[in-house]
This record gives sequence, structure tokens and C-alpha cells, in this order.
Amino acid sequence: MRMYDLIVKKKKGEVLTKEEIEFMISGYTKGEIPDYQMSAMMMAICFNGMNDEETLNLTMSMAHSGDMLDLSRIDGIKVDKHSTGGVGDKTSLALTPIVASCGVKIAKMSGRGLGHTGGTIDKLESFSGFTTGISEEEFINNVNTIGISIMGQTASLAPADKKLYALRDVTATVDNMSLIASSIMSKKLASGADAIILDVKTGSGAFMKTKEDSFELATKMVNIGKGANKKMMAVISDMDQPLGNMIGNALEVKEAIDTLNGVGPKDFTTLCYKLGSMMLMMGGVCESLEDGERLVDDAIKSGKALEKLCEFIKAQGGDPSMVKDPSLLPKAKIREEVLAPTKGYITKIVCDEVGICSLILGGGRETKESSIDLAVGIELVKKVGDYVNENDCIAYIYANDEEKKEIAKKRLLDAYSFDENKPLDRQVILGVVD
Amino acid sequence: MRMYDLIVKKKKGEVLTKEEIEFMISGYTKGEIPDYQMSAMMMAICFNGMNDEETLNLTMSMAHSGDMLDLSRIDGIKVDKHSTGGVGDKTSLALTPIVASCGVKIAKMSGRGLGHTGGTIDKLESFSGFTTGISEEEFINNVNTIGISIMGQTASLAPADKKLYALRDVTATVDNMSLIASSIMSKKLASGADAIILDVKTGSGAFMKTKEDSFELATKMVNIGKGANKKMMAVISDMDQPLGNMIGNALEVKEAIDTLNGVGPKDFTTLCYKLGSMMLMMGGVCESLEDGERLVDDAIKSGKALEKLCEFIKAQGGDPSMVKDPSLLPKAKIREEVLAPTKGYITKIVCDEVGICSLILGGGRETKESSIDLAVGIELVKKVGDYVNENDCIAYIYANDEEKKEIAKKRLLDAYSFDENKPLDRQVILGVVD
Repeated sequence: MRMYDLIVKKKKGEVLTKEEIEFMISGYTKGEIPDYQMSAMMMAICFNGMNDEETLNLTMSMAHSGDMLDLSRIDGIKVDKHSTGGVGDKTSLALTPIVASCGVKIAKMSGRGLGHTGGTIDKLESFSGFTTGISEEEFINNVNTIGISIMGQTASLAPADKKLYALRDVTATVDNMSLIASSIMSKKLASGADAIILDVKTGSGAFMKTKEDSFELATKMVNIGKGANKKMMAVISDMDQPLGNMIGNALEVKEAIDTLNGVGPKDFTTLCYKLGSMMLMMGGVCESLEDGERLVDDAIKSGKALEKLCEFIKAQGGDPSMVKDPSLLPKAKIREEVLAPTKGYITKIVCDEVGICSLILGGGRETKESSIDLAVGIELVKKVGDYVNENDCIAYIYANDEEKKEIAKKRLLDAYSFDENKPLDRQVILGVVD
Repeated sequence: MRMYDLIVKKKKGEVLTKEEIEFMISGYTKGEIPDYQMSAMMMAICFNGMNDEETLNLTMSMAHSGDMLDLSRIDGIKVDKHSTGGVGDKTSLALTPIVASCGVKIAKMSGRGLGHTGGTIDKLESFSGFTTGISEEEFINNVNTIGISIMGQTASLAPADKKLYALRDVTATVDNMSLIASSIMSKKLASGADAIILDVKTGSGAFMKTKEDSFELATKMVNIGKGANKKMMAVISDMDQPLGNMIGNALEVKEAIDTLNGVGPKDFTTLCYKLGSMMLMMGGVCESLEDGERLVDDAIKSGKALEKLCEFIKAQGGDPSMVKDPSLLPKAKIREEVLAPTKGYITKIVCDEVGICSLILGGGRETKESSIDLAVGIELVKKVGDYVNENDCIAYIYANDEEKKEIAKKRLLDAYSFDENKPLDRQVILGVVD
């Protein structure tokens, strides 16, 4: 078998066999197939696509290119969750303790990632002492004893995907649905859960800009997971404005705690209830989504979800007193109001731009080597659909640097649009794929 | 400017500017742009193409990536010739002395190339002592004194094309018309002639399998040349069976000499007259193609074309007595008849297969390092349209190895098709583009 012939095949729009895809992925991972052939293949795939079977085979090959996490030592159905990411997306922070407190096992690998804020791991590091650098042994023990653990993605998790993604990133071959779906799902499959819930974000702050694309991606990922004998569900959720009110690392942790206390923002709370109920159903602790929502509601109102977060933080070395008193979380030196320049309804908050403000303040990473300022960020006091008078406070900037604060403030203001007419109501959940 | 953005542009089907193409080619030549980005770009070009302006700009950038040969020290119009190659294509060997003997200056760079036989340079080395390893000074002096010289392509001729072709060759991105045209024309433009005649081969033994593709390629190359202010003409000629009767190195030299003696095969002679008349017109020594053909005819019948070949061979160190007595050329030990297995008209000779027979006998190179046996090859006694009886001799195999001879003989026989019905008459020249 020669990689050259596989490129020719895909260029002609033909279907690659399972053996061909395995040859390609294992050869590339071992360095036997050079980058320049793989990038030509990736570009051909961008033009001619892959069918469902090819996409599944690609995902399986990448999942098996490194270690497959074996969760068989954990009893019961292990449920994993993945979000395609967006601005203010702190869902895992609230959702995982809710679900674990209802008796469904959460054994999750998370990444740090590049972006407007850090990843879930960075955010969790707002709790002093907390670490995800635990052994597989500790990870499995924690899940067995308290029902929840989150560990960092190991280097041996789907190394083919890591290498391929780095190549796609510099050769303009990222934006193909099959490649995106297989990249995400290869890591999820290697992480060993029995059931996976996907939160596919859509809108200006998401990787998928349109609802159609988001549904297509969700469908592809659900199909891959089912092809690999996993229980699968996906929601399409709004990312045309930031999720919740807080953007930043410690700020998002605080908002997650507020939500576990029953006082979170409406859109974020709605999403947690929806995803939570789906995970509980997949985890086998309820029969319907309505039952699931009731369980979530009870977990929050009884305080047991918050208690579970304490247990989880403590089990991984963190200070649980910060859960009870979020004022102990990292705090920025400057908190400055952003005032409405005019009266009217807020019709749009350009989501990407809010993310960039967080990045400017130091809340995210531009390169792998960047360090993150956990304290900084943005609080949106008013969101799309709210009416404001001139000089009402619409947001706060949390900063540790005057100059950065000024730049972020100006940019944040520019991200807002105002109009006399009330915009249409927005839904946070735009659809479900299962 | 970033290569990444140029890939995105071409992937979207947009047009690259002159500056962008120059950035890409100069960066790639210098090694600043990596292979994996260039191969993604090449694949995107295969899908989305390049318009005429982009193709011209690409060609000019590649031509200027190394030394541009300066032929200004040669008086008059310098005419160059290029063939896209095929089986039995010894045209330059006969054509260049014809044209030079009529007063048009031939200053030509040739390659060795991989293929069924060697390139023009290899064939010329059938004359003992002959070399194309001459200095630019000698090259120009020879053209000025005897009107003709051929030198080997230098490493500094269009290095961007060399590097890019090697990449395209292993990434399945060879078959795009703009890329093919720019590759050929970049070397021709860097070679410094004022006028260029192109012989685009079409058929089973050519790179272009269909007449339509050949016309498209010819048109693209003619447009590039005109865009670079060169006089341009192209013919599309048949390569569905080998050109002439001889395939091999010394064998093809012998056939070229026969043709200069007025006893060459009909198809090859026709092609030489046609191309010759066009080159004479471009060179300004006649007003019409009819006048040109008369000049070619006179050059052959008077013996001055053959005399010019002697002068040329002598000027570059070769033994001119072999021109007068071709029996002195390298000779194979074995000459074996191939007999018709049946009676009937020959309806097809699979052109590629004849070439492969020559390669098997040792007449061509499989890798750059292979050495060539100048003596071996094939003589086609009967060609398409000829009627044969069973056991008539249809061809000779010239070999230096019994085993290779047997393999080639079997394969050659398989390349022939016979039928009771006479096939349609064939034309060697299928069209002209100017």
C-alpha cells in the first residue's frame, strides 16, 4: 500500500477502505508518512469529503493510535461530556457535580487549550492546591469513591489526532466536518466512557457559525459514537452571545458555584438542567428527561450538588472552603464599570469580541507557553434583549493592568449594539440530536 | 503576508495576486515555506485551478527563481523547441540541424529525464565524444559560428520548478493544466529564446491522453509565452502509436540521420517538415508555412541539413564520421525478429507498452542513478494500418541480454492488435495552436 495511491483515490472522490485509513494513520503517527503527503490528503478530504463509514474508521484509527483508557474498574455507566467551546462556557464546572451527586459516574479527561479563557483545568486551578495531574489509579479510585474525577489529557491520548490537528492548523484544512468530528471523537473514545453527551455551540462565538453546520457536526459525532457502541446524545446551544454573565477563569468558577446555589443566570441554568437530565437518563438513573430535570432541581435545591463539588475539589488537592466562600477565589485589582453610551434595547453582543477582551486582559492563552491570569475577565450585567438607559452599567471589566483594561473596555463597548426596537427572544437550546 | 492565508484564498477559489505568487515561490525556493503548506496549496490548485494571469505569474516567478540565460550576445531570432515527450520522439535530433541549416539560430537547453529511452542529450551521446557539458561561453560561440548548440540544463535553471515538481510528484498534484504548463514554460522562459515552438503529444503514449487535454495544455503554454513577450506556436501531434519506427537511443539517432538523408519514415518526416516550417517562419526567414516547407525540403535534398548535423556534433566533441556512416553507432549484440501471430490489419500498437519494452531492454532510466544502454531498442517494421500475413516480420528487438529480450518480445507482441477490417487512416498532426 502506498500513501500516494490513497491521495489519488481521495482526490478522485473515491472511498478509502478501513485498511487504507489504518495504514495512513498508523504510518503518519510513526513518521513513516511525511507531513507533505498528509496535508495533500487533508486538502483532498476538504474538497471531496468522507462518508460516515470513512469518518468512523478515521476516528477509530486515531483513537487507537495511543493508549485507550480502561474504565472497567469503575462500576456502572460512565458518562463523559464534551463542548465544542465558546465564550463563557463553564458548563462542566457546574454540570459534573450535579450529575455525580445524582449517582452517575463522571470520569472525565479535560484539556487546557488555547482560547479566550483557559480550559476546564485552568478554571479549576482557581481553587488553590487543585490539580488534575493525578495518576490513573487515583483517578479511578476517586470516581469509585466520590463519583467524580477530572484528569488532564495525557500525551498518549490519541497522538495521531494531536499530530494531525497541528498539521491541519497550519495548512488551512481544519474546516471539514468529518475531520472535526473525528478529531473530537477520537479523544472521547480513547477516554473510555460508556456514554457521551455533546454540546455543540453555534453562533458568532463558536467554531460553527451556523445552525445547519452545528447540526451536521452533531449528527456526525453522534453517528461516530454509535458506530463505536457508545450511548450518544447532543444538544445544539446558542453561542451568538456569551453563555451566562461571567467570562474569565475564577469569575466563571464563581458563576458555576452561584448556579449550584440556585442563583445562576437563566441561560446557563437552563443549559445545565437540560444537559444534566440527558446525562442522568444516559446514566440510567431516570426514565425521562422530565424525571431528569426534577433530579437536577433536587440536587441543586438540596445542596448536594454543591457538596459534591466540595468533595471533588478536596479529593484533588483543592481548597473546598472556596466553594463555600467564593470571595476567597483569585480577585482582580481593578473592577471598572462599563456604561451604556445610549438608551435602548441591546440587540447584539458580538460574542467573539467579548472573548478577545478576556484574552487582552490576560485571561486566555495565545500560545501554548502563555500563562493565564485567573482573576481577570468580564461580567456582563446586561445582555441581548435587556433595556438600558444612557449611562446604566452594562458590564464590569476585571483587570490587573490599567492599559489592558482601557483597551478591553473600548473593545467591549464596540461589541454591543443598541436599538429602539426589542429584539426577538432567544433560546439557549436550539435543538437535540440523538 | 502568510502562506496560510494564501492557502485559504485558493481553497475558497479566489485569485492569487502577482505579489502573493511571488511571495509563495520565492519563500518556497528559499525553504522558508515548508513542503506541507505547499502541497496543501498544490492540492487546492488541483481542485480550484488558476486563471491565465495567475498561471503566467506563477511561470514568471519560477523562471526568475534561478539564473535567466542571456542570449543577447547572439544575433538574430533564437528559436527553441519543446516536446511534451512520447515513445520514439527523436524530433529534435533531425529538426534542429534542418532549421539551423536554413539560417535560424538554435540555442537549446535539453534534459536527460526519466523515461522509456534517454532524453535528447543521452541520444546525442551515441556519437562518441559528444558532450553537452559545455560552458555558456562555448554555447554562445557555437550558436554564433555554426548556428546551433545544445547544452545540458544547469542546476540553476528554474530551481523553484525543480523543487515544486519533486513535491507534486509524490503528492498526486501533477495533473493540473496550469501547473504542468507553468513547469514546462518556466524552464523555457529561463532558457532565453525569442521564439518557442511546442510539440504537445496526445494519445496512449503521451502524458496527455486526450486531444482536448492536449489542446488545453498547448493553449495555456502559448498564452504564457505570449504573456512573456515570446513568439509562440504549438502543434498537437499523435502519440497513440510510437513516432517513426525506431525506439531506443542510437536507433533513434540512426532514424534521424535517415530522415536527413530523405529516407525517414513518413509520419516522422511529416512532423519535421511541419515543425521546421513553423520554426523558420518564427525565425523570420520565410513568410508562409508553404515557403518554410520548401526550405526544409531543400535543406534535406541538398544535404546541407545533414552537413549541419556533422558540424554540430563535431563542435561539441563528437565523431562526425558516425553521421556519414551510422553503422558506426553503438550496436546491440542481438537482433531478433518478432513475427505476426495472425494475418490481418494492425489496428493498434499500445504506445506505452512499446516504451516499456525499451525500458526493459535497458534503453531508459527508472531512477536518476540508472545507466542507459544506448544500443538496445525496438524497430517497428509494421505499424497501424499495415496489412500482414501470419509470420510476417512486424518488428525487431535489439538487445544485449537474452532474458530481457524474451520479456520484451512477449510484451511487444501483446501490444499489437490485429483485425480483418482496415482501421481509419491516422494523421500525425492533429492541430495547431498559435
